[in-house]
Amino acid sequence: MSLPQVYRYVDEHLEQAIELLQRLARQPSVSAQNLGIAEMADLCVSTLQEEGITAQLLALGDSPPLILGEAVGASPRCLMLYSHYDVQPVEPLDQWQTAPFEPVLRDGRLYGRGVSDNKGDLAARLFALRALRAVTGELPTTVRFMLEGEEEVGSPHLAGLMQRYGHLFMADAGVLEARTRAANGQPRVVLGVKGLLGVELVARSASRDVHSSLAPVVPSAAWRLNWALSTLKAPGERVLIDGFYDDVRPWQQDELEALAALPEDEHWLREEIGLHAYLDQVSGLEYRKRLFGQPTCNICGIQAGYTGPGSKTVLPGEARARLDFRLVPDQQPGDVLGKLRRHLDEHGYTDIQIRAQGSGLAPARVPIQDPFARFCAETAESYYGQPALVFPTDAATIGLSTLAKFLPYTILLAPGAPGYWGSSIHAPNEHIRISDLADAIKFHTLLLTRFAEGAF
Amino acid sequence: MSLPQVYRYVDEHLEQAIELLQRLARQPSVSAQNLGIAEMADLCVSTLQEEGITAQLLALGDSPPLILGEAVGASPRCLMLYSHYDVQPVEPLDQWQTAPFEPVLRDGRLYGRGVSDNKGDLAARLFALRALRAVTGELPTTVRFMLEGEEEVGSPHLAGLMQRYGHLFMADAGVLEARTRAANGQPRVVLGVKGLLGVELVARSASRDVHSSLAPVVPSAAWRLNWALSTLKAPGERVLIDGFYDDVRPWQQDELEALAALPEDEHWLREEIGLHAYLDQVSGLEYRKRLFGQPTCNICGIQAGYTGPGSKTVLPGEARARLDFRLVPDQQPGDVLGKLRRHLDEHGYTDIQIRAQGSGLAPARVPIQDPFARFCAETAESYYGQPALVFPTDAATIGLSTLAKFLPYTILLAPGAPGYWGSSIHAPNEHIRISDLADAIKFHTLLLTRFAEGAF
Repeated sequence: MSLPQVYRYVDEHLEQAIELLQRLARQPSVSAQNLGIAEMADLCVSTLQEEGITAQLLALGDSPPLILGEAVGASPRCLMLYSHYDVQPVEPLDQWQTAPFEPVLRDGRLYGRGVSDNKGDLAARLFALRALRAVTGELPTTVRFMLEGEEEVGSPHLAGLMQRYGHLFMADAGVLEARTRAANGQPRVVLGVKGLLGVELVARSASRDVHSSLAPVVPSAAWRLNWALSTLKAPGERVLIDGFYDDVRPWQQDELEALAALPEDEHWLREEIGLHAYLDQVSGLEYRKRLFGQPTCNICGIQAGYTGPGSKTVLPGEARARLDFRLVPDQQPGDVLGKLRRHLDEHGYTDIQIRAQGSGLAPARVPIQDPFARFCAETAESYYGQPALVFPTDAATIGLSTLAKFLPYTILLAPGAPGYWGSSIHAPNEHIRISDLADAIKFHTLLLTRFAEGAF
Repeated sequence: MSLPQVYRYVDEHLEQAIELLQRLARQPSVSAQNLGIAEMADLCVSTLQEEGITAQLLALGDSPPLILGEAVGASPRCLMLYSHYDVQPVEPLDQWQTAPFEPVLRDGRLYGRGVSDNKGDLAARLFALRALRAVTGELPTTVRFMLEGEEEVGSPHLAGLMQRYGHLFMADAGVLEARTRAANGQPRVVLGVKGLLGVELVARSASRDVHSSLAPVVPSAAWRLNWALSTLKAPGERVLIDGFYDDVRPWQQDELEALAALPEDEHWLREEIGLHAYLDQVSGLEYRKRLFGQPTCNICGIQAGYTGPGSKTVLPGEARARLDFRLVPDQQPGDVLGKLRRHLDEHGYTDIQIRAQGSGLAPARVPIQDPFARFCAETAESYYGQPALVFPTDAATIGLSTLAKFLPYTILLAPGAPGYWGSSIHAPNEHIRISDLADAIKFHTLLLTRFAEGAF
């Protein structure tokens, strides 16, 4: 086992890893704005090829291409590594201290859009392969890369792409975006995600906004939307859509034990966002049961009439609200969408239009006792020197369920992210610490080496 | 009586009247954007002086100046003529067919911001004075002009200006902005306005928007605002604020008779804005009783979170709604503001901030039997050849109550506007018909002449 030499290689060639990440981060690739996506896909292919990985673009209609990369190793056992090459929009631009697409090193940190989420993952994984090959002359195991180009907009084509190309991604196990460590340094293994149903509700009462002096006689889209929303959720937070909770699977005993073993660190966020208390003053295990186990009905945004400077007394002819429902096993987005429509109809809001944002994503969870989950936790403890925190699920959503539906092997979120809890992903001044990048690369060299040994 | 000669003078010199209006309309004067207000005030003063009217600027702190203009006539009886020299913003600019501040004649119409609202009134009145003097050598009666510079932003300094300078505007009667004729050509006399209380409600749950995956534990400003609003008004339109209707004065018998005499023309608006029916299917007298007699609680605008292109799953830390309450006699804005605060407190929404937009405007109504009201109606019938429609009140709001509080004479909204129902005031392509401008000038020459005769 030559891992100490591999680690030394990583330390001695870290500048090359930074250069690799800078090259990826310099290319804008904002899927929400269709900015640089094709160029980024081409850059990914050429970068993979330079690293000795065969690569091809897979497309479906005019979707951003999915990229398949393959590198054969000494062992035929295959690990699938998923990253995405698109990034979040950079706005508000004036809050960046340096240009988002000109990644720069400053005080041991690299700043730029995507350096953490998610080009940092890709760079760390590619450099892990380079280090293993440079030191040992070969890869210990076979690797398949899956690089998606529209993760930041909810993966609308992922199911279609999997239906058509899923067979090309056969493997023995897979990991999604890597997870950062907890604030106390413990690595995190995350075994599931919530589902997501995004909708826009549109109320229309007139073909245009009218002068508000007409309020005694002209119906208001803003009031109508307000009243309709009030029927969906009342103070107390319970979602009032008939049957909404029917398919919520109770926590399993081992999931509850995993939740109980997680640290109490919820006060950090609470203080940062100026909260006096969380809802119902929950804390500790109750906080975690609720955060990870409760499905939600959230107002992402609402807009009607005039809210600009000065005043303009209009009566809105149209009002719109964006909602997102986070779903837990075994809720399904299509089923919840149907229940939402029925609910509005039964409450007299047949006129309110529901625009579903895509077909949604189902929730997904790997069992706590899954062997690959245990393998990842053990590998993380072995590298980072602290026991891994095992989360039964994340509170957020990625396309895990879509992959799980088409790929017949365990897929989860493993440690090894070059980012950390303060990386400001999705926000201005996204950055990583270079020391975390080195750890991320080394962790992946260990992961691939142990994976080849058939350690699970 | 030399009025036929005066009318002939108007017809023969109409180009000069158009030039006068063009000069006023060429100067931008958008109070909401503090654009050109000082320049416009100076232009008003010089224009009045060129017409042989003494003129002075009256200011209060840094308010846009109020302008007093005085012209002594053969009779000491004095008529106060109110106009405002500020205009609405011109946005959306791309919907104008010609530049808003380059007034142009096209097909017998003059297009430009303010040509109807309200520089057209001022031009018509000034040119009426010029015509009377040119033909008869003098004014029949004394005139005081009041030109306000912030009507379009709710007259925030008008009460203060009246408190300080009100004694300079003594008169025997006054008219506000002139009214356009009804679609069938009948002149309109309007005897009152509704009051207005504008507020912004602000709900805050966190110091910033957070990721919506936190919805199980982080309170949402958007939901909180939604629930608070729902307590203010329920489907069925009744305002639920305790005591809101206490001070609503019932219709007087003569007001009801005036309402009953008004034409049924509500279908025009209904069709234009694509309404199947007005609220509760009201029409005819019921429509008018409701439009003119009912106080309202309207959502002018509401905003929270993200509603732009694509999707962004946030949980809003702040949510804001602008409300306007239109008030009827004898409701008072300060009293309603207090009741709103109490209502929110009693319903548990002590955290929701109320930002009052100024101190509001009280409703005001002149009695149907007021002698000056009858005089205006008779003068209008005499000039336009059709009986005047007498409205007990408008459904909208202007600062009439503020003037009425400080000026001890009848003030109302008389006919004689150069605009018409299709003038697109407050909107792109504001315009007047030149034939209406000629009528407006001539009507004002008759009004001043009859006023001098002590006809009321």
